[in-house]
Amino acid sequence: MELFYAYDVSDGVCRLDAEESGHCVRVLRHRTGDEIDVIDGLGTLYHCALVDDSVKGASARVLSGVPGFGGHPYRLTIGCCPTKNNDRFEWFVEKATEVGVDRIVPLIGDRSERRVYKTERAGRIALSATKQSLKARIPEIAEPVSVKDFLRTDGGTSVMPEGPGSDRAPLRLIAYCFEDESVPRRSIKEVLEAYDGTDVRVLIGPEGDFSPEEAQLALSQGYIPVHLGASRLRTETAAVTAATAVYLRYL
Amino acid sequence: MELFYAYDVSDGVCRLDAEESGHCVRVLRHRTGDEIDVIDGLGTLYHCALVDDSVKGASARVLSGVPGFGGHPYRLTIGCCPTKNNDRFEWFVEKATEVGVDRIVPLIGDRSERRVYKTERAGRIALSATKQSLKARIPEIAEPVSVKDFLRTDGGTSVMPEGPGSDRAPLRLIAYCFEDESVPRRSIKEVLEAYDGTDVRVLIGPEGDFSPEEAQLALSQGYIPVHLGASRLRTETAAVTAATAVYLRYL
Repeated sequence: MELFYAYDVSDGVCRLDAEESGHCVRVLRHRTGDEIDVIDGLGTLYHCALVDDSVKGASARVLSGVPGFGGHPYRLTIGCCPTKNNDRFEWFVEKATEVGVDRIVPLIGDRSERRVYKTERAGRIALSATKQSLKARIPEIAEPVSVKDFLRTDGGTSVMPEGPGSDRAPLRLIAYCFEDESVPRRSIKEVLEAYDGTDVRVLIGPEGDFSPEEAQLALSQGYIPVHLGASRLRTETAAVTAATAVYLRYL
Repeated sequence: MELFYAYDVSDGVCRLDAEESGHCVRVLRHRTGDEIDVIDGLGTLYHCALVDDSVKGASARVLSGVPGFGGHPYRLTIGCCPTKNNDRFEWFVEKATEVGVDRIVPLIGDRSERRVYKTERAGRIALSATKQSLKARIPEIAEPVSVKDFLRTDGGTSVMPEGPGSDRAPLRLIAYCFEDESVPRRSIKEVLEAYDGTDVRVLIGPEGDFSPEEAQLALSQGYIPVHLGASRLRTETAAVTAATAVYLRYL
């Protein structure tokens, strides 16, 4: 099954941009009349018939639609400080998308080595992983924001529609070491199992961890400190492990 | 904390090879008398004093030892068909090592596109990830074997010592689609939670899945068919998700 992404779906017609059109028409040699599967990136799969096989801007007429195609029964936001090595963060974006994530917020922490992050490549990776893993909703890659601003605005404003269970209070988690051990931490698994809602937000710090000020601000905003077990995980591994813990919680 | 790997520990002396010695002496400028931390790759961390700061072959006298350093309370073997793209399989080796795995067996399936796999690079990646994630035991990277031979020999002979709970029968799992749905599958999480031992073996197929003959042979050998949830995961993502499910089970 091959999925194409439509940047616009209106009046029963899905429109593909130049890249998707080239892949559909030039590479896969689809012609007018062929039936193809198209996602809108917002959660719906459309089964369509190609009505314009232009290489630069193909379009297809909707035959039927499947809302919530490839969806998951939770809503997950991961705020994660981009790694010094870009590949590692992009790998997290790909794997979290395959497993199931709704929103990724690149965070700039007090101790972040990487203080600038361009979201364009991550957006392309999220689109590609969405299609590859047969989902219809592309996770939102938010613009980077400082950890403190993220906390002060409660994660900022998402462009994504509300998910299931959005009537419950979100579960806010921060993976932090608290070296002085004054703050007791439970495992992410234990905290997830005790939560009966579906809206989970997880913060993952940079290689040098959050600063004590950031951690204190998070606690004051209701974030629950959690650990991810005994293994010392890299930033991107911690982020994927957190996403997998949420995925498995709702399995 | 920086760990060095000793290829030999005997008579109270840890011996580093040329690569580790170069890193210790040339890069980090350690000199005779400095205290360093050394792992034997088999599970023990040694706190040592450098007694020979030769760039080609440094050695250090053992001051104290920590058996089971960075260990985990289970024993996990993952048999996984190497991906066409080598990077993806190596990424699995790195991430599974960080999370916690004991033995990785590259499998050649009936439908594997990659039919030859050299283990040398994966071994280096496993060593590097072991040190980076502060563990003392390097996972074994077995030589490649066909899926059927793996099954006929019950996973072959491991060079690794037996882990905890090795008195219990191992839990043998195969992630397989069984497209005819004649075989009911439970989730890996459910099956793991119902198992009270600690020796887990998981088989992950190639991009084209196991062949029906391989799957039938696995069932006849007591393998339990499991699924990893609704998401369609790439081979290497499935392998890391399985490792994470085991890690979280014993958290």
